[in-house]
Amino acid sequence: MSKTENFFIYGKKPVEEALQTRPKQLDKIFVKNSLRPNSYKNLYETASKNHVPLVTVPDAKILNLVGRVNHQGFVAQMSNIEYSNFFEWIETQDLSKNPAVLLLDGIEDPHNLGAILRTAAAAGIEAVIVPTQNQAPVNATVFKTSAGTAGRIPIIRVHDTTQGFKDLKLAGFSVLGLDGSAKKEIWDADFSIPVAFIIGNEGRGISRNLLKQCDELIKFPMEHNVESLNASVSAALISYEWKRRR
Amino acid sequence: MSKTENFFIYGKKPVEEALQTRPKQLDKIFVKNSLRPNSYKNLYETASKNHVPLVTVPDAKILNLVGRVNHQGFVAQMSNIEYSNFFEWIETQDLSKNPAVLLLDGIEDPHNLGAILRTAAAAGIEAVIVPTQNQAPVNATVFKTSAGTAGRIPIIRVHDTTQGFKDLKLAGFSVLGLDGSAKKEIWDADFSIPVAFIIGNEGRGISRNLLKQCDELIKFPMEHNVESLNASVSAALISYEWKRRR
Repeated sequence: MSKTENFFIYGKKPVEEALQTRPKQLDKIFVKNSLRPNSYKNLYETASKNHVPLVTVPDAKILNLVGRVNHQGFVAQMSNIEYSNFFEWIETQDLSKNPAVLLLDGIEDPHNLGAILRTAAAAGIEAVIVPTQNQAPVNATVFKTSAGTAGRIPIIRVHDTTQGFKDLKLAGFSVLGLDGSAKKEIWDADFSIPVAFIIGNEGRGISRNLLKQCDELIKFPMEHNVESLNASVSAALISYEWKRRR
Repeated sequence: MSKTENFFIYGKKPVEEALQTRPKQLDKIFVKNSLRPNSYKNLYETASKNHVPLVTVPDAKILNLVGRVNHQGFVAQMSNIEYSNFFEWIETQDLSKNPAVLLLDGIEDPHNLGAILRTAAAAGIEAVIVPTQNQAPVNATVFKTSAGTAGRIPIIRVHDTTQGFKDLKLAGFSVLGLDGSAKKEIWDADFSIPVAFIIGNEGRGISRNLLKQCDELIKFPMEHNVESLNASVSAALISYEWKRRR
């Protein structure tokens, strides 16, 4: 397959097998919404355990994805990259080198996501943590807008941002939130420890409950009454400010 | 009109009048390609003098823009912002304060253009210079992706990048090009003078002939074999590096 096109597996058995043998290469599972949930309980649980999003959709959507084939109501969208698991990844890390990661909190625009993955790799960020809930998957559009660089650094999949936040704290990271309400400017933030930067949603910014839990909030000084910056621009500025100080 | 929708004037006389009385508010003029160029020579010359792009298009395109009205083959697309003129603008500048401007060299994606205008305003860049040739106009999509901030700092229209370059040199600016071939990293560039940063096209970067004329080439250090950054990300990093040093 071309690296910039989506690729699908269909049929109940093939989707189950893909989920069991290579869950890290699955972006998403589509299930026909007229099927009884009880009829695919195992598949649902395996998907959940592996942080593979499962969505129920009308017949027309499945037809749109794979055409008139014998899909039995099950389609798996394969990824252009291989996702990582947080706890496997953290074991490969030397925290004394003070790595930095990005934690995405609801980036919806695939162009933003592509640009973020590209800049994070260029800046030497160690990993990007991508929740499976309320977040664009790393699909073909994202891969393309990343100029083919998506996957050069680990993309870690977690259930949601709260889970990602907990995992990071447990591992000893200081979690910094970019928010206009902050008092401290990015130039004054402390990067002499392992840090995670939360990048908020394009419209609403960082979720309120996460904002309260951040170790520190930081902001960019802004003129001309500009209230916020594009999400991929914010991610780039913080990633390169971190790199500058290395 | 809504500030995020395009607005059109049609008919030969109305277009001529708009061009004479408020050229800075015109994005572009569309002329039906079956008209003889001689029949609108004056209009062409006024457009050219005022750096308003004029394009000849098939009937179907005009129908698409304004519908079945008596357009006589002439449609002017009005801008969401008011463009500035380089020489009028330069007279308002105190060069001893070492201002910075961006010179765009063929930004094609309106989302990139919107993000660049937004970040430039936030970083306190004095103006963005936008050629009318080979460059996305500041249309409704751009205005929308700038989160309504396009126009908060002057947007200066010049014929092409070469003209913009000459005007800047004449006014005493040092022109810096962002290019992967550079030896100097952005952290080491000299910002203690009036500076203009050229932001190159999404695919090909800065035009070869301009690259040779730059006072200095600078680059971002990049890891993981990433070859270039998104144009709006490059513009943001250089704008904020300039701001950081103020």
